[in-house]
Amino acid sequence: MQMRFDGCLGFPGGFIDAKDGSLEEGLNRELAEELGPGASACYVTENDFISSWVMESPRKIVGHFYAKRLSLGDLEQLEGGAVHAKDHGLEVMGLVRVPLYTLRDGFGGLPAFLCNNFIGSAKEQLLEALGCLGLMPQNKLEEAVRASQK
Amino acid sequence: MQMRFDGCLGFPGGFIDAKDGSLEEGLNRELAEELGPGASACYVTENDFISSWVMESPRKIVGHFYAKRLSLGDLEQLEGGAVHAKDHGLEVMGLVRVPLYTLRDGFGGLPAFLCNNFIGSAKEQLLEALGCLGLMPQNKLEEAVRASQK
Repeated sequence: MQMRFDGCLGFPGGFIDAKDGSLEEGLNRELAEELGPGASACYVTENDFISSWVMESPRKIVGHFYAKRLSLGDLEQLEGGAVHAKDHGLEVMGLVRVPLYTLRDGFGGLPAFLCNNFIGSAKEQLLEALGCLGLMPQNKLEEAVRASQK
Repeated sequence: MQMRFDGCLGFPGGFIDAKDGSLEEGLNRELAEELGPGASACYVTENDFISSWVMESPRKIVGHFYAKRLSLGDLEQLEGGAVHAKDHGLEVMGLVRVPLYTLRDGFGGLPAFLCNNFIGSAKEQLLEALGCLGLMPQNKLEEAVRASQK
């Protein structure tokens, strides 16, 4: 995920331009702007679509969420290039990995990460993606959410 | 600042080893481990000391906080090397810049950033450093803290 210009954690993405030929074309353009040269490793297609959501206020927005599994090598390439992205230091303040474990104290790791400040539906989308991509079993996700709410 | 392995935001640093000749030597060793090759740009001396604090529980800890102004070039060098640090992906999940402004909505930027989950005294230390280093005037810092508490 990324620390955004507004001080919240979120996913890379953005609004579709009139020039974009499709949702996916617009998303891949945004990924290149925000993630830099390594973004080609996470080129997104219709097959990576996960869910949509509607926001009524302060503006009417329809959002579409995509997620994709990367190899560790692709992730490292992405991280290495991110500081050279056009939007680095402007829209994007830095890239962070999400801890996919809970420490022995029952809170450190994913539960504590979920206590950060997320934009819009990003926290729910993170949990959805971790389930959909098979990165964490559903019962472990639910445990982490409960621990984060204590 | 950095996203830590435990899901909290904090500053690089760590415990002094028996082998470290001084507090600053231990800190510079930790900075090299956590920040990688660019850490030489923020080599810390006694002159960069800001404050100390004591924690009684769960363990007795005396902490010492240092802060230093970097040029944008040094910061970029630091960011570029951070993914090659020994602790990247282990103790450190990523490096983030802190937004030093408030957006027109009165919350986005520093106030929203302050609503993230910080380890120990890291939030108070951030505010202290921004004041001490002259990066933000005291009244602007106080405004941001008030906005973050709404």
